[in-house]
Amino acid sequence: MHILITGAAGMVGRKLTERLVADGGLNGKAIDRFTLIDVVKPNVPAGFSGKVDAYALDVSREDAGKKLVKDRPDVIFHLAAVVSGEAEADFEKGYRINLVPFHYLLEAIRCAGGGYRPKLVFTSSIAVFGAPFPSEIPDDFHHTPLTSYGAQKGICELLLADYTRKGFLDGVGIRLPTICVRPGTPNKAASGFFSNIIREPLAGHEAVLPVTEAVMHWHASPRSAVGFLTHAASLTREELGPRVNLTMPGVACTVGEQIAALRRVAGETVVARIRREPDAAIIKIVSGWPTRFDAKRARSLGFSVEETFDEIIRAHVDDELGGKVAA
Amino acid sequence: MHILITGAAGMVGRKLTERLVADGGLNGKAIDRFTLIDVVKPNVPAGFSGKVDAYALDVSREDAGKKLVKDRPDVIFHLAAVVSGEAEADFEKGYRINLVPFHYLLEAIRCAGGGYRPKLVFTSSIAVFGAPFPSEIPDDFHHTPLTSYGAQKGICELLLADYTRKGFLDGVGIRLPTICVRPGTPNKAASGFFSNIIREPLAGHEAVLPVTEAVMHWHASPRSAVGFLTHAASLTREELGPRVNLTMPGVACTVGEQIAALRRVAGETVVARIRREPDAAIIKIVSGWPTRFDAKRARSLGFSVEETFDEIIRAHVDDELGGKVAA
Repeated sequence: MHILITGAAGMVGRKLTERLVADGGLNGKAIDRFTLIDVVKPNVPAGFSGKVDAYALDVSREDAGKKLVKDRPDVIFHLAAVVSGEAEADFEKGYRINLVPFHYLLEAIRCAGGGYRPKLVFTSSIAVFGAPFPSEIPDDFHHTPLTSYGAQKGICELLLADYTRKGFLDGVGIRLPTICVRPGTPNKAASGFFSNIIREPLAGHEAVLPVTEAVMHWHASPRSAVGFLTHAASLTREELGPRVNLTMPGVACTVGEQIAALRRVAGETVVARIRREPDAAIIKIVSGWPTRFDAKRARSLGFSVEETFDEIIRAHVDDELGGKVAA
Repeated sequence: MHILITGAAGMVGRKLTERLVADGGLNGKAIDRFTLIDVVKPNVPAGFSGKVDAYALDVSREDAGKKLVKDRPDVIFHLAAVVSGEAEADFEKGYRINLVPFHYLLEAIRCAGGGYRPKLVFTSSIAVFGAPFPSEIPDDFHHTPLTSYGAQKGICELLLADYTRKGFLDGVGIRLPTICVRPGTPNKAASGFFSNIIREPLAGHEAVLPVTEAVMHWHASPRSAVGFLTHAASLTREELGPRVNLTMPGVACTVGEQIAALRRVAGETVVARIRREPDAAIIKIVSGWPTRFDAKRARSLGFSVEETFDEIIRAHVDDELGGKVAA
């Protein structure tokens, strides 16, 4: 089995690659080849004996789709994107990276011929939804994004469903919760603080909280995100039906509850490293974001996630800090 | 005021032009100029003393948007589209006509500079919704189209809302019900029979009914469609808020109720000209179509429609048959 991952150098892309290498296969088939691409050359994964093509590619080039499809990967994970903050700040770049390359990829698959019909897993986002919301957002709630990022993801979802319906490929779109705790350094996502206020204090650093503790949001760990991706790749056309875009399960909690969980896991000294510094721009963006979903359909299709935010913090401690909390 | 209409040679485009010429203005401002374009040259409207540019234009050309925006129309009605049956039969053409030119138009407006910010009224469709449905479809029901036409309209809606949110233009999208009774000759819309079974018998001709009488659908007269368009152009940004795409009100009735209405308006001799000839392909397409909406938001914003299907038939008799029914 040949797996293609776009955005393979990003946080989720790297963790997905590691997981697939560790599993050695997907859907009961051995993986013998990876193609890993990103705007910078992704690392070749350690411990994989098959063929790996890892290279930098500008996915916004019109020929990028054809290049990616030439060797007919069986499963494609399309993760390449610029994050919400960047797509909002640079309107042209947002569409050029988050929409155009996906359309090129779909077109390249459609035109490949010879019965080529790969599985295509697309990472969408809960940003396809926009306020005001009911207290719990149902699976059939409409898509009225309040960011360009959300609009771009929503457009990709519609394309994915239509190309799938026409039989050109087997698509599945998964609307990721905010991934928390993101390891590494902050990126340009406006949602960065949800992770910063956990990761930085755990690492002994101060973190800025730009919103109030009442802000509720929808979270899943990087480990769960990788689980969503591999599970999505296992679903059949019959299981999915025509509605191929799914809101993933998550943990709904307020910033206050996040902080309380951090206190339980790591103690008051760690929590004291969070500094309140309200930011009107971030408060405004976040006020349009979704809070809590029912995600019934995804759960019924076997997607699973942490039960509590404590578990999300412990996943970070286990996966990134070697299981140790230094207070 | 300068008005641009794309798709001006189509049925709705012609009726909209006639109505605007008859009114002489829009939103309390006199109209002094029309630009009318379509794939064939639209007719210059009779009785208009201002400037009219009417010409054929391939809107899928990359420079089409710039050409249309050059003279800075104040209000743009974007009606140009291929119908659902054609978009389904010719995948490439559907995207080339129903999506690409709209994006070119939006980009041309965004890049025009000098504070240009026109009102843009986009004709979307209830085809953005796909079965299964609740018994009455609420305004916040999700968009899971089951046709390429519906996907294309849904994508345009997301673009329109995002360009509006960013302040590049003042957009409003109206999801038209099936327009019934369509005058003239049948087009390639799979929904054609809803009109055919009324128009043809009234004109003394036989009509084919390809579905069962139980099929329920959502209708509005051409007169109402024109009313939706002019009313949409009158709404302010403040009235619309961020959710700029609206499901229009309509008349929900079954094919059986349509036929009963025809019997009341025109008698049994006319009704007898309907021939039942089930068509599996059309039955399948129509089974995915929406039935009944609440359309609360559009009604609260002042959009109005016929109360009964009898009124829809009478609007056709008045507007197309000089008020006379020949049994």
